[in-house]
Amino acid sequence: MAKIHGPLEDNERKTTGEALQASVVDLIDLSLVAKQCHWNVTGRSFRSVHLQLDELVDIARKHTDELAERAVAIGVNPDGRSVKVAGDTRLSQPDPGYLQDDKVIAVATDVLSGVVSRFRERIRATDDTDLVSQDLLIAAAEELEQQHWMFEAMR
Amino acid sequence: MAKIHGPLEDNERKTTGEALQASVVDLIDLSLVAKQCHWNVTGRSFRSVHLQLDELVDIARKHTDELAERAVAIGVNPDGRSVKVAGDTRLSQPDPGYLQDDKVIAVATDVLSGVVSRFRERIRATDDTDLVSQDLLIAAAEELEQQHWMFEAMR
Amino acid sequence: MAKIHGPLEDNERKTTGEALQASVVDLIDLSLVAKQCHWNVTGRSFRSVHLQLDELVDIARKHTDELAERAVAIGVNPDGRSVKVAGDTRLSQPDPGYLQDDKVIAVATDVLSGVVSRFRERIRATDDTDLVSQDLLIAAAEELEQQHWMFEAMR
Amino acid sequence: MAKIHGPLEDNERKTTGEALQASVVDLIDLSLVAKQCHWNVTGRSFRSVHLQLDELVDIARKHTDELAERAVAIGVNPDGRSVKVAGDTRLSQPDPGYLQDDKVIAVATDVLSGVVSRFRERIRATDDTDLVSQDLLIAAAEELEQQHWMFEAMR
Amino acid sequence: MAKIHGPLEDNERKTTGEALQASVVDLIDLSLVAKQCHWNVTGRSFRSVHLQLDELVDIARKHTDELAERAVAIGVNPDGRSVKVAGDTRLSQPDPGYLQDDKVIAVATDVLSGVVSRFRERIRATDDTDLVSQDLLIAAAEELEQQHWMFEAMR
Amino acid sequence: MAKIHGPLEDNERKTTGEALQASVVDLIDLSLVAKQCHWNVTGRSFRSVHLQLDELVDIARKHTDELAERAVAIGVNPDGRSVKVAGDTRLSQPDPGYLQDDKVIAVATDVLSGVVSRFRERIRATDDTDLVSQDLLIAAAEELEQQHWMFEAMR
Amino acid sequence: MAKIHGPLEDNERKTTGEALQASVVDLIDLSLVAKQCHWNVTGRSFRSVHLQLDELVDIARKHTDELAERAVAIGVNPDGRSVKVAGDTRLSQPDPGYLQDDKVIAVATDVLSGVVSRFRERIRATDDTDLVSQDLLIAAAEELEQQHWMFEAMR
Amino acid sequence: MAKIHGPLEDNERKTTGEALQASVVDLIDLSLVAKQCHWNVTGRSFRSVHLQLDELVDIARKHTDELAERAVAIGVNPDGRSVKVAGDTRLSQPDPGYLQDDKVIAVATDVLSGVVSRFRERIRATDDTDLVSQDLLIAAAEELEQQHWMFEAMR
Amino acid sequence: MAKIHGPLEDNERKTTGEALQASVVDLIDLSLVAKQCHWNVTGRSFRSVHLQLDELVDIARKHTDELAERAVAIGVNPDGRSVKVAGDTRLSQPDPGYLQDDKVIAVATDVLSGVVSRFRERIRATDDTDLVSQDLLIAAAEELEQQHWMFEAMR
Amino acid sequence: MAKIHGPLEDNERKTTGEALQASVVDLIDLSLVAKQCHWNVTGRSFRSVHLQLDELVDIARKHTDELAERAVAIGVNPDGRSVKVAGDTRLSQPDPGYLQDDKVIAVATDVLSGVVSRFRERIRATDDTDLVSQDLLIAAAEELEQQHWMFEAMR
Amino acid sequence: MAKIHGPLEDNERKTTGEALQASVVDLIDLSLVAKQCHWNVTGRSFRSVHLQLDELVDIARKHTDELAERAVAIGVNPDGRSVKVAGDTRLSQPDPGYLQDDKVIAVATDVLSGVVSRFRERIRATDDTDLVSQDLLIAAAEELEQQHWMFEAMR
Amino acid sequence: MAKIHGPLEDNERKTTGEALQASVVDLIDLSLVAKQCHWNVTGRSFRSVHLQLDELVDIARKHTDELAERAVAIGVNPDGRSVKVAGDTRLSQPDPGYLQDDKVIAVATDVLSGVVSRFRERIRATDDTDLVSQDLLIAAAEELEQQHWMFEAMR
Repeated sequence: MAKIHGPLEDNERKTTGEALQASVVDLIDLSLVAKQCHWNVTGRSFRSVHLQLDELVDIARKHTDELAERAVAIGVNPDGRSVKVAGDTRLSQPDPGYLQDDKVIAVATDVLSGVVSRFRERIRATDDTDLVSQDLLIAAAEELEQQHWMFEAMR
Repeated sequence: MAKIHGPLEDNERKTTGEALQASVVDLIDLSLVAKQCHWNVTGRSFRSVHLQLDELVDIARKHTDELAERAVAIGVNPDGRSVKVAGDTRLSQPDPGYLQDDKVIAVATDVLSGVVSRFRERIRATDDTDLVSQDLLIAAAEELEQQHWMFEAMR
Repeated sequence: MAKIHGPLEDNERKTTGEALQASVVDLIDLSLVAKQCHWNVTGRSFRSVHLQLDELVDIARKHTDELAERAVAIGVNPDGRSVKVAGDTRLSQPDPGYLQDDKVIAVATDVLSGVVSRFRERIRATDDTDLVSQDLLIAAAEELEQQHWMFEAMR
Repeated sequence: MAKIHGPLEDNERKTTGEALQASVVDLIDLSLVAKQCHWNVTGRSFRSVHLQLDELVDIARKHTDELAERAVAIGVNPDGRSVKVAGDTRLSQPDPGYLQDDKVIAVATDVLSGVVSRFRERIRATDDTDLVSQDLLIAAAEELEQQHWMFEAMR
Repeated sequence: MAKIHGPLEDNERKTTGEALQASVVDLIDLSLVAKQCHWNVTGRSFRSVHLQLDELVDIARKHTDELAERAVAIGVNPDGRSVKVAGDTRLSQPDPGYLQDDKVIAVATDVLSGVVSRFRERIRATDDTDLVSQDLLIAAAEELEQQHWMFEAMR
Repeated sequence: MAKIHGPLEDNERKTTGEALQASVVDLIDLSLVAKQCHWNVTGRSFRSVHLQLDELVDIARKHTDELAERAVAIGVNPDGRSVKVAGDTRLSQPDPGYLQDDKVIAVATDVLSGVVSRFRERIRATDDTDLVSQDLLIAAAEELEQQHWMFEAMR
Repeated sequence: MAKIHGPLEDNERKTTGEALQASVVDLIDLSLVAKQCHWNVTGRSFRSVHLQLDELVDIARKHTDELAERAVAIGVNPDGRSVKVAGDTRLSQPDPGYLQDDKVIAVATDVLSGVVSRFRERIRATDDTDLVSQDLLIAAAEELEQQHWMFEAMR
Repeated sequence: MAKIHGPLEDNERKTTGEALQASVVDLIDLSLVAKQCHWNVTGRSFRSVHLQLDELVDIARKHTDELAERAVAIGVNPDGRSVKVAGDTRLSQPDPGYLQDDKVIAVATDVLSGVVSRFRERIRATDDTDLVSQDLLIAAAEELEQQHWMFEAMR
Repeated sequence: MAKIHGPLEDNERKTTGEALQASVVDLIDLSLVAKQCHWNVTGRSFRSVHLQLDELVDIARKHTDELAERAVAIGVNPDGRSVKVAGDTRLSQPDPGYLQDDKVIAVATDVLSGVVSRFRERIRATDDTDLVSQDLLIAAAEELEQQHWMFEAMR
Repeated sequence: MAKIHGPLEDNERKTTGEALQASVVDLIDLSLVAKQCHWNVTGRSFRSVHLQLDELVDIARKHTDELAERAVAIGVNPDGRSVKVAGDTRLSQPDPGYLQDDKVIAVATDVLSGVVSRFRERIRATDDTDLVSQDLLIAAAEELEQQHWMFEAMR
Repeated sequence: MAKIHGPLEDNERKTTGEALQASVVDLIDLSLVAKQCHWNVTGRSFRSVHLQLDELVDIARKHTDELAERAVAIGVNPDGRSVKVAGDTRLSQPDPGYLQDDKVIAVATDVLSGVVSRFRERIRATDDTDLVSQDLLIAAAEELEQQHWMFEAMR
Repeated sequence: MAKIHGPLEDNERKTTGEALQASVVDLIDLSLVAKQCHWNVTGRSFRSVHLQLDELVDIARKHTDELAERAVAIGVNPDGRSVKVAGDTRLSQPDPGYLQDDKVIAVATDVLSGVVSRFRERIRATDDTDLVSQDLLIAAAEELEQQHWMFEAMR
């Protein structure tokens, strides 16, 4: 039983909440994967990739917070604990150890491609349930798709 | 075989690297636990606790990055992927769902107490292996112990 | 007869204009109610509530201006005069004099609950008439619903 | 019975409080009238008048807050609710709808003339009751009289 | 054959890409027309018009960049070369030489009226193809319609 | 014999100088008492009180400097040495050790009540001797009385 | 016949206007004398005196503008033309050519002593005519007397 | 017949005006070419080239505005309309579509080489006609030649 | 006999020094004339003219300081005392009292026309004596000629 | 019995706490002595000494707060009340009244010499008890020794 | 015979001073080598290397100043004159002329490797002589080792 | 054989390049000499001289970078390595050890006098070879001659 009484009907809240919770997991793990690459990348393009990844981390963190706070505002509890993220994540993981720059670019492009695809599903899913949450998902998708282009352009 | 040739001997690098890697796991999970509480806290002290936790998140993230970059600078690969954090974390986890403010204060105090205690061991461990890494661990401990006081004072 | 020739058809302008004008009244009175509470609140949570209310005032004022300027941009004159606001407002009013902090939190939560509910109707109403105005209403609703959560969490 | 024990005697508090409360009503309605003109003004001088009015709004809001907080600091509850403002205001109101620029300049000049005249009475009234409140009234009058000059110079 | 693999189906990409490309041409030429007027305007309202036009230039440039980058992000190459802009523009052009202020106001109002009308078509066109691009078009339309009002109000 | 030749007659300087010197002692000790509470406060309201006290410290320090520099500008040497402050202070002192939040709120309210009362006497005393110094005392009183209200409201 | 209708009676306006106009002349010439010294000073204390004089210039210019705008706000035309300043100034002038640092300190101290003395007369003169103008004169005197102390302290 | 009476003789104005107008065309098209490349570049050096091009855009825009305003200040109307730019430009144009990074570097180097060469002619041409305009051309040339070096160094 | 040993020969210093001193007089009086108009202007264009004049004051003051410091750097004492400025100025003076906006625009245009003409003579005069001083005169002329255009465009 | 459970053993806390408490007293009194000199200094070096002393005050205050908060973070209550400071201070005190600049320089040098010497003892004392507190003491010593050099260099 | 009486014993001062002086030489030459490469680098990675080197220059300069000021604070005169640096430097020097990017990366990595190694010796050497100087050396080493990693990662 | 193809003819490049290279050596050594004095200066004027020298260092560094980048932009490799600077410098060097303030002022004045004199030769030399480089040399000379005046004025 939710303590916060958001503006949605039960079924709207359920659908919207699932979209937000899944996005939170996507974005937290995106920030962790990006940091992992940020630290371990090597190669001639080290500086460009290292900096680009920190822009990605900032984007992931900003939208994580906005979507998680949106979840609680509609009366759904976001769950961003490490065990939840590790268990639910759908991002393919980079190997431990040094990561060559072209490998990092490929990882980032692929990971972003998957995240973006799932965000577009959630934008569709919330079209009938909550236009406010949808607007936040669109704003996140916009920046994620921009990042996707930038990494893919480096390939 | 490390690609980055840091300034340490092999055994120094091993001890120091373990201290840094364990700290990275501590701090990433600290940031995730603090965010989890930041989102789900309720109660009359909501605003104070909500804001205090974001200061804690900032501190955890700043030192995560400094210690992880320090690791790679000495030729040790930090691992901050979600599965690694979830598997290695020693932080007790908050329950999912709403968290009453006094409960959050207790969780934060206890979690910080454990983290601080492990940082002090690592400060001792690096005393003979790498004073530069030790200095970064001391700087982190200082801010973590300050946070510990502030949460404990709220009890 | 409108002097500004906005981009809408007459019936679109009428529906959209009504949604915007009603929002302007809601938000001006929200800013006045929030300031009234900001000044007269007492109690142990004085500082948290006093500051939270000023964030609410800033939000109310920002969106008032955006929605009123949107109205005139589509050729509808917004009316934000005190007599209009006092006559049309649907916000329940706090009593004069000192207001205990828990009372203020209840007032803010209830007032925001009503405002949010009306904004959602207007979002639906403008779906077929003006997506630009709808986008501004969504942006306002997002921040208002966030404030609603924060006050309700304090209860 | 006041809960806040300000530094004044009862009769000082009564006189000072009346001056402050009346000023709060003047300034809130001044901000609403100025915004009304800011949104609905037309004519060749649109930009100058539109911008000048927003400076006036900022001044009105700043001094509203200072004087209302002063009131509560001396143990008098300010009342800035819409119904109070609409009922007590002594400002002549602009018509609804578009407002030609020369009309707006005339309205602003006249409204400010009245407000300034009432502030000077309140400065005299508080000379024997509270020099601190008087100082705040003088600071407000200074900026209001400067605005009055600027609008009158545009006539 | 596109090198960047954006998130859209082929037909979605085609429709969306055409909307974005046409918007880029509109906005580049809008910035050039506005600068032309900004430099050559004369008359008593010189300063107001000169400054208002630079705000319009900033708006046009900001949205040009966002929409062009959006195009490439979905795998469509934006074309903003001078020969393309000159060939495709649908903006009526100001005469060379000095431009009297009332003439500039009329030009800006008319040019913006046309641009806004085309943006609204594109918002409709992208409703079924890409909500992210639509959101960017809505954000641009909002500021362009605001500018349209401000110039028309000066007439 | 004064080395700085301020603008006052001897008796004006004497009366004004005494008011300023006594204010300097009040404000220095106020800053020390506030810091003492800032460090040692405990309780659920820790964060609110801790932060409010630092605002008070800033206010006390700012006015200390302005009043002490005013003293020397009129040819009177301010004395803010610790032994002078400890000897002349009229502020009741908090106990050493931890201070419960409600205790701190009571201490701050009472200490400010006394300081404010003495400032009002000095404002009266300088009415005939130096309007410039009086203006600085009024400015200090205004902020101190605002703080008094805020702490009293928390009771 | 004044075009701006300030809030004062004729005799109040006359007395206040004379005080403001004379202050404008004092402060413009103070800024010119200070710049003359700023440029031509020599000696071991060059840097300290050169920088201190620019603070004095800033103060003189700020209060010139505030007092001149106050004059026109009450319906009195300020006159700050060079021939007026040169004709009416009561400041003793530095010699042309290089100025030794101790000479500059003496000049600044003496000039400020005279200006301050005249400001105090004007503060008295406006006590019955316009408390708003008086407040501006007090604010100017405060900073001028502070500057006087600083130069005299360097002697 | 020019409306603005600049400080130059007719023949000076003619020569100088031609130099400025030609520079305006060069710089507007430089900004458009640079943006075209900024959006469509691909390749491992994407990030470096993408960012470097935006610095070039900023430089081109800043000097466009300064030189165009200089033209009108001497009584010559600048013409920066798209049809004029497209017709008069001497910059070789990049192909539409994706642009490989080495191709972009070559284009930028060559385009800048041509622009710089024409600017040096204009600096010579204005040596006898207007030293003020020449100074602005020199300032532009300095930054353009710096950009030329940076792109050529990347080859 | 100069105390500062600048880099110039005697005759170079004499010619350059005269150019700089005459410029200092021009610019100080320009700042005083502009302020006189800034305060006393009336008319529908009040705001535009009032603000434009303050930009002119800033420009005049900035270049006064640079040219006067340049004079002393080459061993020539600048003289900017009021009696010198009033005696040497070649600027026609506005009448005392209110100044209608079209009158102010005419005054500013004419005064700037004269100043600009004299600056161009000084740029020629210093061509053979000191390129550094010439560069500062060119920089001043550039901004003064820009201001001249802007005022003339308003006619 | 401490309420805050810091990370230290009892004997570590006792030694560390004594070092921190004694430092707090040193630094509070240093800030008071420096302010006393800042206000009362006279002499040709007035400006340099006056400003240098305010840098010293900032340093003293910053480290006071850090060390006092460190004390409570390890479970020791700092005591910075005026009577405690006056009673425990080991700083030799300046005389009341005017202080000649060379006298101030001597006082500051001597006082800093003593403070620095005691900080070095405390750095040694905490080497075995708390490396975090030691790090804060080292940071304070570094800035205090820099100030000591600067004052001694002025002798 | 030292004029500044730092806090160290003679032998402590000698050892510490030698460490600081050698570090000053290392860091000055590091800044010169880095600037030499910053200017003369060519190759596809020009921009990344050019910018990375300026970060290195900033780091080298910041620590040069801190260590040199530390030296004088303990009574040892730093010597950073060019002849001293050229004579004592242990950095291998880049060739004159253009430097290919991979060559620059190799040079920077090797030079930093040597500097870092010498800093670690100095950290050991000062462990018994001056913990404050040691702390500054550790802070410098931390940033230098981070730079070393970043250049080595680019190899 | 130059890799960068600047805009100059061979003989122009040779003459200009020599002027730039010699300036780079002058300015690097000026920054080193100024820092040497900044660290080792003593005497009553310590603070003024210490701060003035850091302004000189900033100026020297800024122009070093601009002139060295200009050299490479025209296809000439600047050489700023320590051995080059030490070998080619024409600045007389200060003695090692403490430097009395009047000695430092004399050194700075003399060194600047020589540098300025050589810059003027280079301004003449580049008059026929490269007006862009000349403009940068003039800008440097302007600030260096200003510094020269300021130090000479302190004598």
